[in-house]
Amino acid sequence: MVIDLNADLGEGFGIWRLGDDLALLDIVTSANVACGFHAGDPVTIRRTCAAAVDRGVSIGAQVSYRDLAHFGRREMEVEPEELCAEVLYQLAAVDGIARAMGGRVSYVKPHGALYNRICRDPGQAAAVVDAVADYDPTLPILTLPGSVVHGVAAAEGVPTIAEAFADRAYTPSGALVPRREPGAVIHDPAAVSARAVRMALDKSVLAADGSQVEVLARSICVHGDTPDAVRLAQAVRDQLLEAGVVLQAFA
Amino acid sequence: MVIDLNADLGEGFGIWRLGDDLALLDIVTSANVACGFHAGDPVTIRRTCAAAVDRGVSIGAQVSYRDLAHFGRREMEVEPEELCAEVLYQLAAVDGIARAMGGRVSYVKPHGALYNRICRDPGQAAAVVDAVADYDPTLPILTLPGSVVHGVAAAEGVPTIAEAFADRAYTPSGALVPRREPGAVIHDPAAVSARAVRMALDKSVLAADGSQVEVLARSICVHGDTPDAVRLAQAVRDQLLEAGVVLQAFA
Amino acid sequence: MVIDLNADLGEGFGIWRLGDDLALLDIVTSANVACGFHAGDPVTIRRTCAAAVDRGVSIGAQVSYRDLAHFGRREMEVEPEELCAEVLYQLAAVDGIARAMGGRVSYVKPHGALYNRICRDPGQAAAVVDAVADYDPTLPILTLPGSVVHGVAAAEGVPTIAEAFADRAYTPSGALVPRREPGAVIHDPAAVSARAVRMALDKSVLAADGSQVEVLARSICVHGDTPDAVRLAQAVRDQLLEAGVVLQAFA
Amino acid sequence: MVIDLNADLGEGFGIWRLGDDLALLDIVTSANVACGFHAGDPVTIRRTCAAAVDRGVSIGAQVSYRDLAHFGRREMEVEPEELCAEVLYQLAAVDGIARAMGGRVSYVKPHGALYNRICRDPGQAAAVVDAVADYDPTLPILTLPGSVVHGVAAAEGVPTIAEAFADRAYTPSGALVPRREPGAVIHDPAAVSARAVRMALDKSVLAADGSQVEVLARSICVHGDTPDAVRLAQAVRDQLLEAGVVLQAFA
Repeated sequence: MVIDLNADLGEGFGIWRLGDDLALLDIVTSANVACGFHAGDPVTIRRTCAAAVDRGVSIGAQVSYRDLAHFGRREMEVEPEELCAEVLYQLAAVDGIARAMGGRVSYVKPHGALYNRICRDPGQAAAVVDAVADYDPTLPILTLPGSVVHGVAAAEGVPTIAEAFADRAYTPSGALVPRREPGAVIHDPAAVSARAVRMALDKSVLAADGSQVEVLARSICVHGDTPDAVRLAQAVRDQLLEAGVVLQAFA
Repeated sequence: MVIDLNADLGEGFGIWRLGDDLALLDIVTSANVACGFHAGDPVTIRRTCAAAVDRGVSIGAQVSYRDLAHFGRREMEVEPEELCAEVLYQLAAVDGIARAMGGRVSYVKPHGALYNRICRDPGQAAAVVDAVADYDPTLPILTLPGSVVHGVAAAEGVPTIAEAFADRAYTPSGALVPRREPGAVIHDPAAVSARAVRMALDKSVLAADGSQVEVLARSICVHGDTPDAVRLAQAVRDQLLEAGVVLQAFA
Repeated sequence: MVIDLNADLGEGFGIWRLGDDLALLDIVTSANVACGFHAGDPVTIRRTCAAAVDRGVSIGAQVSYRDLAHFGRREMEVEPEELCAEVLYQLAAVDGIARAMGGRVSYVKPHGALYNRICRDPGQAAAVVDAVADYDPTLPILTLPGSVVHGVAAAEGVPTIAEAFADRAYTPSGALVPRREPGAVIHDPAAVSARAVRMALDKSVLAADGSQVEVLARSICVHGDTPDAVRLAQAVRDQLLEAGVVLQAFA
Repeated sequence: MVIDLNADLGEGFGIWRLGDDLALLDIVTSANVACGFHAGDPVTIRRTCAAAVDRGVSIGAQVSYRDLAHFGRREMEVEPEELCAEVLYQLAAVDGIARAMGGRVSYVKPHGALYNRICRDPGQAAAVVDAVADYDPTLPILTLPGSVVHGVAAAEGVPTIAEAFADRAYTPSGALVPRREPGAVIHDPAAVSARAVRMALDKSVLAADGSQVEVLARSICVHGDTPDAVRLAQAVRDQLLEAGVVLQAFA
């Protein structure tokens, strides 16, 4: 069994910081680097890419809506032509910096409200897929399996990688329980780690109602922006390794 | 005699426009495309690059301080590490978009206050040169001959291209008369065109005091942001062609 | 018959300009001054307020979503608490500048996507109304008659002023024909002026299907951001005056 | 003996936070609220003002250069007319929010690079003083005693309040030792507290060379953006109270 661990990194801006990037880089196998539109400034991107290259961690472009004021978490109406250009701009900028640091961008992970939107909106999904196809059609998009963007990408020949969330509750149909509902986010490291192991070995998770749901994921996302993020991520990593799972980037 | 004509393009932002980009693209041989830090948003960058590729116009990254509110015209203290990362980010973003449109960035032209600063400040000049060297050390920097950045680039093995300003008055020592002084900017198309021809054929210009000054330039800059910009640029182009000068990009 | 003519002003940013503000200030009786979130920087706000005070034109705060990149035209999900604070910030900033110039903000006109949203969304409408009530509950909100925000404002005791659009087609039920539909915007100055006169004198307009619709408006909006804006606005003003309508600000 | 304790507050932006604002509000008597140009968004400003009003803490407008990317710490060339309008905008915005929360802005404290610049640059100092005079000429400016802005303000009839820095080393002539020099910032709470007491009671401080320097200050600044900020500020407060100093806002 081989699994990737991905986390959002470089999500500071100017003087502000979010999470302990260096600690997380010692845990994950893939780093979703913020591109400057919801977070991330050029010097942070460069330092994050350099640190990822040093540790052999795979670099992804964490593309987003242009929304520093709300961290890319607000849903927005953006014309497909504009969204496509904005994604292309971010992807190219981070890839260029990664290459200057001796690495490269190996995948694309949309962020926040854009991530959610393209799971259900074919127009915005096509804009993101087009940007990737224009830049490098071999770059996979990391997203939820079975979502709209997976279908759009398949139709354009852009690869996708499925991810799962070990710290999020699932519905019986395999969707994520919305964050605003009670129990949507699981905080106990032992519980989260056990779910991660089950996702990796059994390709399943226990849904909120106790039923077993299939979860096909090549990558598991751990969050980096909470106080206990590093401890939680370390627990997931440790338990996966102990269960004999091989941690390896997909790209 | 071969000369390049360059102009600043894509200097709008969102709804706002500056200059008639398409008209200028039919006149110049090199387009300095704004990268988003003083002007230029992704969709404008993409349209400008696409139009330049269509016309065979060479594309340059017009890198700048991060200063939308003042169009990159304010001098700023920026740490070299940050400035270097900011230039790298802009250069990579525009090059990526240009490549998606079938072209590429072939040179770098710093904008506004950054342009002036690196003509005299070795620290900021080194930051810009380092960014270019990190990204692609074969990309030339388009700037004033004899300025500090030329020396810094030479020491790092980054090529430079000298440019002249047909619509700016020169001092007897070959520097530009500061904009705030009377007569610093020449508006008469006939006068500007005649100066351009002299720059191309005789490698000289008449200084403000009437003396003849040597001007070694592979490229002549025409401005695009004034109401008469297109007419002036067209006059320069016509007179250069009539004088037998070959208009050809340097990159 | 008394009517107000309002237009959006000060909608530049930094080096960029939109429309001929001084010409429009000689035509309208109320100036909707951009507050810096979709357009407008402090020095533009100050100049616009000073010019309005000089001419006796009433000043309104044209509050918006925070969206310079898309001119406040993108619909956004914003939490009511944040939206309320953002509107309060803009309103206070422009009122403070207007007072320093010898005037004051006398009304609030939401802009673009926010204008449309609060015509139908009670949550965002309440956020805007709360901001006005917190700042000065005697300030009227200028918006479409019969829309959701009118009801919300009435419930909070905040006054509203109804406006009509002389250059927009109306449906038989009195709503605006969406911009994307053919014929939604009327460009002929004679037609627009005639509609304005009818709105002022008969409180009605001919809908797209030729039926007569009641339009209760104390203010008529003329647009300032098109090339022919000044000519159109002047025609509306001239025809209203010729028809004996008194042009007078509502606030 | 009466002294004021001031600290910078509300210096987050969007999702990002800096310092423990609520803890500091229980310690200081004056809160320098970030206005949105180097930090601070409307909802943060509103919450900070509301919390200050709750605790009876005086509110100041911490005006800054427009520089979110570098936290207002970069020196910038800004035309006086623009700087004046930018300061006026910030001051009015925060005062309006403070009033909506039941308080008001009672003083102005420039931030970062602007603070330092107006201590020596008459042009930018005049721009700041003009903005305050335009808005409310009774509002004092909190700054270094003996600096250029004090003289400019006196000439315009705008009051100033002198502040001292208990955690910064002083030169024998009473200036601050530049941050880049060793020993410029004092971190030991006992040492900082002792200096604060001496400043309040003896109007003096020991300079870096051991000599005694007169320090006339009505307010002492404690910093809020370091990990130990709260502990340090609490120590200063405790020692001042123990020494019989009365802690009271100047405004």
